[in-house]
Amino acid sequence: MRHVVIIGGGFGGLEVARRLRATKVRVTLIDRNNYHLFQPLLYQVATGGLSPSNIASTLRYILRRQKNCEVMLAEVTAIDVHSRSLTLDSGTLSFDDLVVAVGATTSYFGHDPWQDDAPGLKSIEDALEIRRRIFLAFEAAEWVEDFPTRQALMTFVVVGGGPTGVELAGALSEIARHTLKHDFRHIDPRETRIILIEAAPHLLAHYPEKLRRWAEEKVRRLGIEVLTQTRVVDVNDHSVRVRRGEEEFVLQTRTTVWAAGVRANPLAEALAAQCALSVDRSGRVPVTAQLTVGEFDNIYAIGDMALCLDADGNPLPGLAPVAMQQGAYVAQRISAQVRGRSCPRPFRYHNRGTMATIGRAAAVAEIGKWQISGWFAWLLWLVVHLMQIVQFESRLLILIQWGWNYFTFNRSARLITGPLRCLKEEENENDSSTTVSPQSSSTKIE
Amino acid sequence: MRHVVIIGGGFGGLEVARRLRATKVRVTLIDRNNYHLFQPLLYQVATGGLSPSNIASTLRYILRRQKNCEVMLAEVTAIDVHSRSLTLDSGTLSFDDLVVAVGATTSYFGHDPWQDDAPGLKSIEDALEIRRRIFLAFEAAEWVEDFPTRQALMTFVVVGGGPTGVELAGALSEIARHTLKHDFRHIDPRETRIILIEAAPHLLAHYPEKLRRWAEEKVRRLGIEVLTQTRVVDVNDHSVRVRRGEEEFVLQTRTTVWAAGVRANPLAEALAAQCALSVDRSGRVPVTAQLTVGEFDNIYAIGDMALCLDADGNPLPGLAPVAMQQGAYVAQRISAQVRGRSCPRPFRYHNRGTMATIGRAAAVAEIGKWQISGWFAWLLWLVVHLMQIVQFESRLLILIQWGWNYFTFNRSARLITGPLRCLKEEENENDSSTTVSPQSSSTKIE
Repeated sequence: MRHVVIIGGGFGGLEVARRLRATKVRVTLIDRNNYHLFQPLLYQVATGGLSPSNIASTLRYILRRQKNCEVMLAEVTAIDVHSRSLTLDSGTLSFDDLVVAVGATTSYFGHDPWQDDAPGLKSIEDALEIRRRIFLAFEAAEWVEDFPTRQALMTFVVVGGGPTGVELAGALSEIARHTLKHDFRHIDPRETRIILIEAAPHLLAHYPEKLRRWAEEKVRRLGIEVLTQTRVVDVNDHSVRVRRGEEEFVLQTRTTVWAAGVRANPLAEALAAQCALSVDRSGRVPVTAQLTVGEFDNIYAIGDMALCLDADGNPLPGLAPVAMQQGAYVAQRISAQVRGRSCPRPFRYHNRGTMATIGRAAAVAEIGKWQISGWFAWLLWLVVHLMQIVQFESRLLILIQWGWNYFTFNRSARLITGPLRCLKEEENENDSSTTVSPQSSSTKIE
Repeated sequence: MRHVVIIGGGFGGLEVARRLRATKVRVTLIDRNNYHLFQPLLYQVATGGLSPSNIASTLRYILRRQKNCEVMLAEVTAIDVHSRSLTLDSGTLSFDDLVVAVGATTSYFGHDPWQDDAPGLKSIEDALEIRRRIFLAFEAAEWVEDFPTRQALMTFVVVGGGPTGVELAGALSEIARHTLKHDFRHIDPRETRIILIEAAPHLLAHYPEKLRRWAEEKVRRLGIEVLTQTRVVDVNDHSVRVRRGEEEFVLQTRTTVWAAGVRANPLAEALAAQCALSVDRSGRVPVTAQLTVGEFDNIYAIGDMALCLDADGNPLPGLAPVAMQQGAYVAQRISAQVRGRSCPRPFRYHNRGTMATIGRAAAVAEIGKWQISGWFAWLLWLVVHLMQIVQFESRLLILIQWGWNYFTFNRSARLITGPLRCLKEEENENDSSTTVSPQSSSTKIE
């Protein structure tokens, strides 16, 4: 039986597998994680609003009834398109058709050392690390007496003014202004500085001007400092150096999050090389109108790692709906071939709309000719995202969690797990006083 | 103002802090985590039934309205009862009254190297590590062709037949027999072996005979192999060696969980030494009838780290209700002193009952003269545990999650996070074949 191997269990890869349910092929879905992750809500894990298992379902569970599909937990290290085989960390695997859907990783535009001090937000591990840093920073600030250190601890820099950056900054503002309001005795979390840096002239650059303006106004009213036309020139664990026009200045911060750019998974470049192609600036492999790669009619690339042009010659954006429509197309094409029918016409993306949320009851949405902002757009965002979550159980739990978070301003998933390293370093640095503050600042709480 | 310092935000320490709400004292609660953990449900995190944030609430959130209380995220490294001060990882802190409530850690009875291969279940990190190992073992078993290796991967050894061990084994049985039933193509999870090892002649040794027998029968009907009067003599990453009477034999397994013993936190011994006392076999510091330590009327030890005798001279068990009643007593005593009243009479533990769950709709409970087993005991267990969870939101979410898990047999929190090391080692060991199995075993799925 024809063997379809899919690398990557994200939106694109999973869609291919599910759509091949009724087709007489053998499907193997390989992922290095045992779960499908609903990435659009990852920022809510990073900010303590949801738990990882709320937005991730195991691939085995999703595909448990699909008897023609196997799931393999493995990492693909090499692809050989000529011999039709993959090298895994645990052996080799041959295929008839290959769908590569491995997505993208955070890009530091050539400054990979910034990674440690400005983590990106692409995986659950990333989200938990960012969550840890955010809440540890407040813990450290509570007990630090040195004013500049305290200020740096209470300053959060988000690099990148796209949807992820805006969502993160909005959630941080809610944490500072509402969630933590009563939690501390020595600091007032409402004094937190949140700085959003964007190289382009506007936030949410891909949205129409009306929505962009509304969003920028909303972001500013949340107390977020927006620095547009500003580029990051250096990042370390104590500060971010930025340039705006001719001017350069330093932002003192202990918590920087990188939401500025993505680059296709390195497997895209390896695949391109195999097919005598070269990747674009973002590391994406160019695909044909049939989503195949080079001259290989049985090799597909879809989702964030694929450079797929629309009718006007512009690359399709790295969005879940693009990946899912591509996945459905690939499955349809393979099915047609198996049934001996003619292949479907070239892939075309149907844009059903895009949306981004900014904070409590505030979002922007562009749906066809509609441009909506505010409360109704937020409700729409909520419904659309909930309906896209794979498991019904998760939808129910997220709905309750959100309802709770909304009315109580609480975020119950703000556990600090993992090492306390950062906090300790912070405190040791402040070695002018080795006595922590309850003694000296006792007046504050009496 | 009198300064009460509490070390440890578990059941005991948190109870002291909350009960001092209306007392004119300054309270500082120190914990090395930023959350209070509902330990009785930790085994559900380890087996993918609940998420960490379901059973943990941040201490700051719980105590946010209690203005006389500060929370400090720090590790206490030394106690000086004479100068009334603590050494923290971040400085020093002085106190008027000190309540030490740091609980217990897993004890390997002198075999600490076993820790890596048989993790205990005391923290969220422990639970996530056990969860990772359980679900990785099934993933590896799915793709391993060597039969003995596959069998070892599908064998789970739980050491310790107390409530935690029985609960863990019961949950593992449900995972194997129900949760994963449809998830795999090459293995049948129902062939999983679960072995429960207990050194005493019976499981749940502290329960009355009738309940013990019922529980043992139930455990066996869940397909769990029970080895009583059996001692572990060695543990490594491939096997557990046990001795039963004169006979010694080896159990081939890749996943061992240690639920056999606890030992007081090392701080108990440090405290005892300061007060010219020595700890008992379990490392607990002896306390007076007022729960004070040695001759120090302002130093208290409560919970699992304290050796507190009942009227018959038997040590009180390491249970949440004991710690909570002790916490309430300490708070009452300090309040009385602050108000200049006479101190309350000696501490006495009121046993309101104990219960343990075995699996789906099966539990045992002893409440006064009542001995209940089966479905009703399980319902009682469920209600009692839900009501004890600190946050109302968590109660609601856990209830829904449990309802869902119960009716669908699903456990949605079975993400494998952290390194994939174990799996890879497993696969590399099996190097007789470097080709993974979908090719060779394709008949199975056609």
